[in-house]
Amino acid sequence: MSEQKIDNRLWSNTARNLSPYVPGEQPQHDNLCKLNTNENPFPPSPKVAEAISNTLADQADALRLYPAPESDELRTALADLYHLDNNQVFVGNGSDEVLALVFASFFLKERPVLTPDIGYSFYPVYAQTFGIELVQIALTEDFSIDPDTYRQPCSGIIIANPNAPTGLLLPLSAIRKLASEHSNSVIVIDEAYIDFAQADADSDESAVSAVSLINEFENILVTQTFSKSRSLAGLRVGMAFGNASLIEALTRMKNSFNSYPLDKLAQAGATASVLDVDYFTTTCQQVIDLRQSLIAKLTDLDYQVLPSQANFVFARPADGNASAVAEALHEQGIIVRYFDKPRVNEYLRITVGTAEQNERLISALTAMQA
Amino acid sequence: MSEQKIDNRLWSNTARNLSPYVPGEQPQHDNLCKLNTNENPFPPSPKVAEAISNTLADQADALRLYPAPESDELRTALADLYHLDNNQVFVGNGSDEVLALVFASFFLKERPVLTPDIGYSFYPVYAQTFGIELVQIALTEDFSIDPDTYRQPCSGIIIANPNAPTGLLLPLSAIRKLASEHSNSVIVIDEAYIDFAQADADSDESAVSAVSLINEFENILVTQTFSKSRSLAGLRVGMAFGNASLIEALTRMKNSFNSYPLDKLAQAGATASVLDVDYFTTTCQQVIDLRQSLIAKLTDLDYQVLPSQANFVFARPADGNASAVAEALHEQGIIVRYFDKPRVNEYLRITVGTAEQNERLISALTAMQA
Repeated sequence: MSEQKIDNRLWSNTARNLSPYVPGEQPQHDNLCKLNTNENPFPPSPKVAEAISNTLADQADALRLYPAPESDELRTALADLYHLDNNQVFVGNGSDEVLALVFASFFLKERPVLTPDIGYSFYPVYAQTFGIELVQIALTEDFSIDPDTYRQPCSGIIIANPNAPTGLLLPLSAIRKLASEHSNSVIVIDEAYIDFAQADADSDESAVSAVSLINEFENILVTQTFSKSRSLAGLRVGMAFGNASLIEALTRMKNSFNSYPLDKLAQAGATASVLDVDYFTTTCQQVIDLRQSLIAKLTDLDYQVLPSQANFVFARPADGNASAVAEALHEQGIIVRYFDKPRVNEYLRITVGTAEQNERLISALTAMQA
Repeated sequence: MSEQKIDNRLWSNTARNLSPYVPGEQPQHDNLCKLNTNENPFPPSPKVAEAISNTLADQADALRLYPAPESDELRTALADLYHLDNNQVFVGNGSDEVLALVFASFFLKERPVLTPDIGYSFYPVYAQTFGIELVQIALTEDFSIDPDTYRQPCSGIIIANPNAPTGLLLPLSAIRKLASEHSNSVIVIDEAYIDFAQADADSDESAVSAVSLINEFENILVTQTFSKSRSLAGLRVGMAFGNASLIEALTRMKNSFNSYPLDKLAQAGATASVLDVDYFTTTCQQVIDLRQSLIAKLTDLDYQVLPSQANFVFARPADGNASAVAEALHEQGIIVRYFDKPRVNEYLRITVGTAEQNERLISALTAMQA
């Protein structure tokens, strides 16, 4: 619906002033090389479909009755995975819903919320939705996050880690610093891509996820998703980990907005995914290997590629004309993500695909340089 | 978590002040006669599980990719069912989510929203969540809604129809009156139970759903759910119908909160349910027949039963001691809903069950009177 034709006289001011998030396009036709929304190139664990089919098999009651209201089985599986208590785990309809509840629960205060100037572009939308002031802190020249630049009064801090669309990982030492220096604010680490990250060989810490810090810092909240590393974008499941008081706030906020839980099939499928640890570990490593190979090939083509720890790479063609490359690829049915924004408009964000998809991409880029 | 133990120092004021909605209990054990949350006694159409299984069969991509972002297939099926355009249809994760978006989109204004003093108890929770003033208008002595009592400035009006927990139906003539008299406010008719309602034999109108009015009144928005008449409480799907401008506001609000749609399996299952018209019509009529039989038997036991048009009945034992009856039934594994609130605390809300469940209830009540 075009802007000028909308009759919005019955809308609330909040509705009138929204600028909704626009996700990457989701064309549904065949033979597309879809490298624009960071889906996993591998299917989910076969146990997922099996668990859903088993749930469905109880025709009479599977769907007729309301789902388990607290998603207990799923939350227990997640708690066990990370050696947490159930009351340190929250689940929702995708991590985007979880993040919306996070903004309302912790950032809706007098002081602003701080976030990097380059990051997940939904954060400013949430802030606008809830009327929260958002202050964007500039990344350094090399796109990294300097905790010292966050020293100002705030309701909280939210950082995607690895960051999007850069793919760079913030080390736990920096997160500890932020949490210590802002003990009265909630530090939200949005770990949509964390399962593709690996600790630096010469780092003191073997962990990369801030989940390892939540028993140490009561003000750290970590969000994750089943859409990337668990290949379940179609199932819409996200989660948060934090101390019991933070999880209680999220639960109350959720129950004041939509008191019902994830649907029964999503609960069953997500639980099966968490329990199949081997499949998860194997496919994550495969994606990491494919990423390193993609980075090497792009570098061979004179692309400047950031050292990604996610399942995508952020790459700049030698002439900086990323927009033209994206367009040329699109014409060949290869879709990558281009952000027409300052500082990142010379880069492409390219999802790590299967070996075949990556080859198709590299061939197309090679042909362009011929 | 008990009230005094919660450390809420990191919460927003909004989070601190919430009084979340408490749904009816969902015990998961066997041999229970669960007549407390208005689930359908019949399973969903067998086409639902079939459609979900077919979707799942495409192991590689079914769940790996994001779902169709606009839920087009489902919205088209619903639009066709009601002879509407696609842009007059909105879908969400259950009608509770849809209602939350309705409050934010249309009621978040200077003026209060009006609702009956006896109705769905989530409405005051939404108002509190969004900081909206809610004015409750008293039902008449016989629990009906008098449109004349709504003549005051308001941002909108929200009415469950049939009303909960009374089960009484507001005729379309009254809804027309409200819509005409409040042309600058959105009139929301929450039709969770409408498919169990039938027009009065001596009424001029054959329709009972306000969906039939949305091309006539641009300020009428109708919400419905798959949880009751379509036996899909476990799948979490709800919808709204209204003119394209109202639907656009809901879509923007949704995309500013959680830009992703229903999960892929829920979209497939819900679509199959809508397309199986015969199954739907047959099972709704069966529930209606069971309801009338239950009303007759309760009346025989000297219960005062309101003329319900929903899939539950609202019934008062002769001595008005509904709380004691609810407790005695609970001890026998029969769960009904009791509201400890003024005006309704002498009544029980009892879901219409299968013939066997209703018989078990009536036997237990008969034994109590022996």
